Amino acid sequence: MEKLERRHRGNLINSIEGFKSLVLVGTKSPQGNTNLATFNSLFHLGADPALCGMIIRPNEEGENTLGNILSTKYYTLNHVRPAFYQQAHQCSAKYPQGVSEFAHVGLNEQWRNDFFAPFVQESYIKMGCELVESVDIRHNGTTMIIGKFIYLEAPQECVLEDGSIDLEKAESVTCSGLDTYYTTQQLGKLAYAKYNP
Amino acid sequence: MEKLERRHRGNLINSIEGFKSLVLVGTKSPQGNTNLATFNSLFHLGADPALCGMIIRPNEEGENTLGNILSTKYYTLNHVRPAFYQQAHQCSAKYPQGVSEFAHVGLNEQWRNDFFAPFVQESYIKMGCELVESVDIRHNGTTMIIGKFIYLEAPQECVLEDGSIDLEKAESVTCSGLDTYYTTQQLGKLAYAKYNP
Repeated sequence: MEKLERRHRGNLINSIEGFKSLVLVGTKSPQGNTNLATFNSLFHLGADPALCGMIIRPNEEGENTLGNILSTKYYTLNHVRPAFYQQAHQCSAKYPQGVSEFAHVGLNEQWRNDFFAPFVQESYIKMGCELVESVDIRHNGTTMIIGKFIYLEAPQECVLEDGSIDLEKAESVTCSGLDTYYTTQQLGKLAYAKYNP
Repeated sequence: MEKLERRHRGNLINSIEGFKSLVLVGTKSPQGNTNLATFNSLFHLGADPALCGMIIRPNEEGENTLGNILSTKYYTLNHVRPAFYQQAHQCSAKYPQGVSEFAHVGLNEQWRNDFFAPFVQESYIKMGCELVESVDIRHNGTTMIIGKFIYLEAPQECVLEDGSIDLEKAESVTCSGLDTYYTTQQLGKLAYAKYNP
């Protein structure tokens, strides 16, 4: 591993960890500029309280995802559909301050219930989060953002009887590494596992 | 959200976050007993140093995944293939101390290079990690385990020219919620995104 060229090593480590939760993170700066960024490090922290975590790499101060979340406390998570996965990927590029990824890649801002940050109109599954805590990871300078869900939206026909969401019906896309995108095919939904001697 | 019955709420929050990285975590207790547990909260922390994170719910002291990692420092991450996803799911059940999930569900322990913890023989993609830090998440009593990759294994034919792993060729399975498993179908592998005014 140590001998690998830097980019090869990044590709290896990013992909060997497996498929990931892919979301577009929408924020708005105190100056009123919107921002949209691709993230694949979302993880579940707990259902009660309903919390999620996300890792953000160090970046300059200013109007970017980390800066906006820390200064405004609010952000949205939006699932990606096959119809716009290429536009979602484009949001992983580094944009100059003041240029909104929304307009540049051709995705529409959507505003819900006075929520401070913009949702992605084209997404079927949308979540609105409030910053609860930011934790500095001292080993590599990244930041873990802990958010509380305060808004959830999914098409009625994708909500199953047990409360869960049918992600396949919602056309949610998964990804591996930093560049590869996938649709899915269900193998099975299994019963709660119990030990039976 | 607040009005939902506890299990419904858990199903909703666990699934709406999207597809997840599914791994079987192999550990060995100081007493020499092996343990295998299903996890879907693995996330990428960085490639240099090569670090990953994982959230573990609070559980009793003893011979379980958290106890074994904290006391022995070593654990393995093993991808799940469709051929044994039902056995992998069964590893999410609560087992009594001293009963190894390996034997009970019918998966084989595999030992590599004197690595302390057991790998899953049936997995094509295997990772060996050393505990770097455990972080208590005060909002819900969970623990974030930060691990450093010290061993990686993938079939030669699944390693692409750019260093990344073809997870579809490796038959890796993804999941949503706590009970639904999926194979994938690649939409595309895209070029590094750049801003073009």
